[in-house]
Amino acid sequence: MELPPNEPFPGIQDPTLLIHRQIVEENLSRILDKTQAKGVRFRPHMKTHQHPEVGRWMQQLGIQHITVSSLDMAVEHARLGWKDITIALPCHPRQLRRLAELSKEVTLQVILDHTAMVDVLQEYRVDVGVWIELDTGSHRTGIPVQDVETIRDLIERIETSHHLTCLGFLWHDGHQYAHSSSAAIQAEWQRTIGAVDDLKKSLGMRASSLLCSAGDTPAASQLADLTDVDEIRAGNLVYYDLMQWQAGNCSLDQIGICLAAPVIGRYPDRGEIVVHGGAVHLSKEGLITTDGTTIFGLAVRLHDQGWTPYSTTSPVIKLSQEHGVIQLDINSLDKYPIGSLIGILPVHSCLTADAMRHQRSLVI
Amino acid sequence: MELPPNEPFPGIQDPTLLIHRQIVEENLSRILDKTQAKGVRFRPHMKTHQHPEVGRWMQQLGIQHITVSSLDMAVEHARLGWKDITIALPCHPRQLRRLAELSKEVTLQVILDHTAMVDVLQEYRVDVGVWIELDTGSHRTGIPVQDVETIRDLIERIETSHHLTCLGFLWHDGHQYAHSSSAAIQAEWQRTIGAVDDLKKSLGMRASSLLCSAGDTPAASQLADLTDVDEIRAGNLVYYDLMQWQAGNCSLDQIGICLAAPVIGRYPDRGEIVVHGGAVHLSKEGLITTDGTTIFGLAVRLHDQGWTPYSTTSPVIKLSQEHGVIQLDINSLDKYPIGSLIGILPVHSCLTADAMRHQRSLVI
Repeated sequence: MELPPNEPFPGIQDPTLLIHRQIVEENLSRILDKTQAKGVRFRPHMKTHQHPEVGRWMQQLGIQHITVSSLDMAVEHARLGWKDITIALPCHPRQLRRLAELSKEVTLQVILDHTAMVDVLQEYRVDVGVWIELDTGSHRTGIPVQDVETIRDLIERIETSHHLTCLGFLWHDGHQYAHSSSAAIQAEWQRTIGAVDDLKKSLGMRASSLLCSAGDTPAASQLADLTDVDEIRAGNLVYYDLMQWQAGNCSLDQIGICLAAPVIGRYPDRGEIVVHGGAVHLSKEGLITTDGTTIFGLAVRLHDQGWTPYSTTSPVIKLSQEHGVIQLDINSLDKYPIGSLIGILPVHSCLTADAMRHQRSLVI
Repeated sequence: MELPPNEPFPGIQDPTLLIHRQIVEENLSRILDKTQAKGVRFRPHMKTHQHPEVGRWMQQLGIQHITVSSLDMAVEHARLGWKDITIALPCHPRQLRRLAELSKEVTLQVILDHTAMVDVLQEYRVDVGVWIELDTGSHRTGIPVQDVETIRDLIERIETSHHLTCLGFLWHDGHQYAHSSSAAIQAEWQRTIGAVDDLKKSLGMRASSLLCSAGDTPAASQLADLTDVDEIRAGNLVYYDLMQWQAGNCSLDQIGICLAAPVIGRYPDRGEIVVHGGAVHLSKEGLITTDGTTIFGLAVRLHDQGWTPYSTTSPVIKLSQEHGVIQLDINSLDKYPIGSLIGILPVHSCLTADAMRHQRSLVI
């Protein structure tokens, strides 16, 4: 059995994440036009890609400030040459030694939603900027934006510290990911901005110099004007994915990554092929489609320059640890002998990219 | 802010997978009593744990034959000293060079459900044992067990090859994972054994020497007698998880792993704590509980010797990339200051262990 002579990527032996440089750079240009070109800092969240080469493209585009979601990721990016890093996950005492070390190497920002860590950071002389995390509706971490007294208390505690600098307010409107209309996302954004303005008014003069940092891909993608805030930390919009596509925040051809998966089984009677490409590659994140079924990816045709969606829907319908089951019309199925590659657009690119890492990725 | 003086695992700084040696060894002893003690080979699936130390415990218990789910995992385990390895994922032509190399180092078995690869393996002189994969109802990979002609054809093709040895029939009753009663699992097992017996009868004399290899944790856990087959390849039963617990295949105290996650946020008003421990640690596999909600883990209290479940249910109710949100009664919540550790039993231990790897694990 020979592979077809024009089979793309003959060097790929195992599931491999393809990263499409042109799409990624276009996604970056679009957000830079809306942010840095308008005086808003774009501080991309590196958790989506975690890829040194994508980081270099960002540097070449003039990006100097980044967001990460763990101390480990901060240390890794400091090693890659980044000098200004926000860790957008609340820090805790078990990390103090490493936090203190890192704060000597780079300009470091942490987020807090309570006073307990202030004394600890002070005691260990950790020189960091502190963002006060607000809960603007997602109910994950953060002080409820209406809780003026707690926020005022935290600001005062930070301001009396010799090592901490209060930077301002940071939030992640995670609940934006549930919206699927531009109008709803715009309304939610305005609601949050209004609530933060009210907070600042209640806090009085001291709040006027505090900055605002927002972080979600839906608003960053849908809104034409982001100048209500000082900083945008979105990360997913670098790659996008089927979730963002379904929510209307990107087009299918703006999705910048695709899993190249070798075909390991052909089942024409079932209208299915099975690939080596499972939950440990794509993640087990599912997407509920309009007809109520859950899919784990969408198959696309690969070619040397990238990929092309099929005219008929070709979903990944089942996913176990290493296997993916893809529904495919019979004409397409005939084109995939054992060992050929099919592409899969991921449901949630952050989790797929974390699973694949740069070690199992290929920039095209 | 100091951590409580009796806080367990003071050395842990980041999410860490705890592996409880005593529980794992008891799980292993139980399956060895049912298999090797009765003349059935136990060829554990290493994909669940992928941990060199767990592998050594297996070797100390006399286990010499293993199953893996990828060629990469086979190469890794050959390096760890394993000499007899079945790759329970259909092979394909892109892997030929590495397959050929590995087949010179260890006794290697592959699985096939089509004739196309036979000529390729023959041409490249890959000396391997071949299991014919049967689809006994899970509709993932495998030849339908009723399709006698296709199976006969494949056996003949393998037998005429100079390099391949036909070992017998292998299947994975993936549909067993949907059952939650011992009787249903027993009935399904009997149905499969009956179908394979029918197949052997239809094939005639040539089939009498062929072996049978079965692979699911539900049957391996629920059935007292596994002597219908020659080999059991279950892997999950080494660790078990909430999925297997919900299905009645293990007790809660037979679950051998637990994610130790640092508390990063406390929200008494919501009855919730937030931990550093998210989808990149636990995986995004959800479990639908009897009341219809989806959970991503169950919180337990950690102590130096292991963990203890709470008397009230304490589920992980939301999971993002690095955050986990845990519902906790107010009395328990009070015991978790920022930076303390809480344990999380995983929904699907195979995916959690793959995410954490041995690099982020700790044997206790």
